Amino acid sequence: MSLSRGAYASSGVDIDLKSIFISSLVRELKYRRSVNGPVIATGHFTAAVTFGKHLLTLSTDGVGSKLLIARKMNKWDTVGIDCVAMNVNDTICIGAEPIALVDYVATPSLEPEMGAELGRGLNRGARAANVTVVGGEVAVLGHMMNELDLSASCLGFLERRKVITGRSIKAGDEIIGVASSGLHSNGFTLVRMILSEKSIPLDEKFQSGKSLGNVLLTPTTIYVRPVLRCISHGGITGMANITGGGMRNILRLNEKVLFSITDLPRPQRIFAFLSENGGIPDSEMFQTFNMGIGFVIVARKGHGDEAVRCLRKHRLKADIIGQVEKGHGVALQEYGIHYDRY
Amino acid sequence: MSLSRGAYASSGVDIDLKSIFISSLVRELKYRRSVNGPVIATGHFTAAVTFGKHLLTLSTDGVGSKLLIARKMNKWDTVGIDCVAMNVNDTICIGAEPIALVDYVATPSLEPEMGAELGRGLNRGARAANVTVVGGEVAVLGHMMNELDLSASCLGFLERRKVITGRSIKAGDEIIGVASSGLHSNGFTLVRMILSEKSIPLDEKFQSGKSLGNVLLTPTTIYVRPVLRCISHGGITGMANITGGGMRNILRLNEKVLFSITDLPRPQRIFAFLSENGGIPDSEMFQTFNMGIGFVIVARKGHGDEAVRCLRKHRLKADIIGQVEKGHGVALQEYGIHYDRY
Repeated sequence: MSLSRGAYASSGVDIDLKSIFISSLVRELKYRRSVNGPVIATGHFTAAVTFGKHLLTLSTDGVGSKLLIARKMNKWDTVGIDCVAMNVNDTICIGAEPIALVDYVATPSLEPEMGAELGRGLNRGARAANVTVVGGEVAVLGHMMNELDLSASCLGFLERRKVITGRSIKAGDEIIGVASSGLHSNGFTLVRMILSEKSIPLDEKFQSGKSLGNVLLTPTTIYVRPVLRCISHGGITGMANITGGGMRNILRLNEKVLFSITDLPRPQRIFAFLSENGGIPDSEMFQTFNMGIGFVIVARKGHGDEAVRCLRKHRLKADIIGQVEKGHGVALQEYGIHYDRY
Repeated sequence: MSLSRGAYASSGVDIDLKSIFISSLVRELKYRRSVNGPVIATGHFTAAVTFGKHLLTLSTDGVGSKLLIARKMNKWDTVGIDCVAMNVNDTICIGAEPIALVDYVATPSLEPEMGAELGRGLNRGARAANVTVVGGEVAVLGHMMNELDLSASCLGFLERRKVITGRSIKAGDEIIGVASSGLHSNGFTLVRMILSEKSIPLDEKFQSGKSLGNVLLTPTTIYVRPVLRCISHGGITGMANITGGGMRNILRLNEKVLFSITDLPRPQRIFAFLSENGGIPDSEMFQTFNMGIGFVIVARKGHGDEAVRCLRKHRLKADIIGQVEKGHGVALQEYGIHYDRY
């Protein structure tokens, strides 16, 4: 649930209105089971309920308007990867292992060849995340939709005593940034507004012979296997999936410390391209897009290097990008940006 | 996943095309986790994976085009009940108890007052089903949608040894029909086609001073508490949630027996109203709508009466409506209808 503001509002996603809508809805949700109660609910990256000595996690997310790029490119075999990624990357944020996923396709009409392409992407995502797609639903909603929407929900689990919520994060902890593959699946309403205003075609050659459309469709990185492997070594105090809301997402881990980011790697070219063409200031770029960092891991002082080594061994680009200090918020020191609420 | 044909196809939901789409998608889903593998996957009412001595279930479903009636009535506080109901009534079909639910709202724009109304319905559904709504997602998809879509996914559990799949159903078993509250949340594309063709307004008085629109919006019955209570007495061999596909849904329990339905109660007036105004034959009515029976329970010979008594004690209308015989399919004897595939 992104809370970025500014140009994004003018692109059609009014984030203030969205947070009001969500609060109004969530405020009504008073009923709680007396057993298997929620220990982590709305606000973190995944919800979790107790189940004996385990926690079970349940999360849901969709591909969003990246699907409109898939439509224009008539390429449907990667959005399934994004769909799995959005869910499993949330699941692992508390240290949980994804087990099973159900997909939900809502579509104005049925194009059978799309079914196979969507399935192929879901399957590639499932393999990468070690999760089984156990079921799903296809809803044909001719009068309600103009374009196919793809979302999913993911079940995960972990031992209760191993949960990592971010609450124990303290000054001195080290902040690790793990590279994204590009835009992942957020900010596409703004992307489309920029491309439309500047009349930039998707078949424009962008880099390494790839068209802009294909660069935009680059599947979201799935962090599951390396992250679960590396956190098993211990010393990890928090994890954040950098989705809508960008770097603001880190605030969901702990509001009583300052996440001081001092060494951001240079974002991929696509981000500068969007910023320049859209005239989007850094403060908005960093709260709308992942800017090259798709996942953030916080480690106890002295554990950062080991985690970085482990992540790199699993072929992820990872670096220590800052440290936790006394204070509040997320500070991007090189950019003079300070976010103080999610 | 309804498989009704005929008039329903002309209303915009081509069920043959839908089954091709689904098969194309599912065929690609080859990846399976080596642990926590699925024991029940696509085809039954809910998917389930192993988790120690338990099974965990995961299912997903939405309210569908019933939402277009909510829009016309500008009444959004009951569709949340439908949304919970569609999911939890699937969950209990294998004997599982729903624990947690996440909702997914995809909307073209944000109307904050709708957030509260949707939440109110979800909360009422959660209370009825004894499930916690632990999280959710709101996706603002301006260019993709014309109308808000509401769906959810539900996590449930049961002891592995207690699973009820329908596989042990055999000739002699008794078939119990449990009353629906009306249309529940299926067949609304056809409903809307009929109303539109006959120019029938939703504010037309229908019965007991209630408008047609309000009768159509009657929330789906939530069967969780009574059904879980009553199956704990034993003797239950299968359960079917009667949704899209109507009585054909029973075929999902067991394809090697004949479900012989001999004593159907008279369906609520709304069904005759739709059948008459749409000129819809019985064979199509029974495979599109629940026709008054929202849930079917199969019990071992001699256990039916006890189950009926138990369900009635919990204020559900329930009756023995037939029995299992040698053969194949679902036969509605009074109507001369025989369905032989789902």
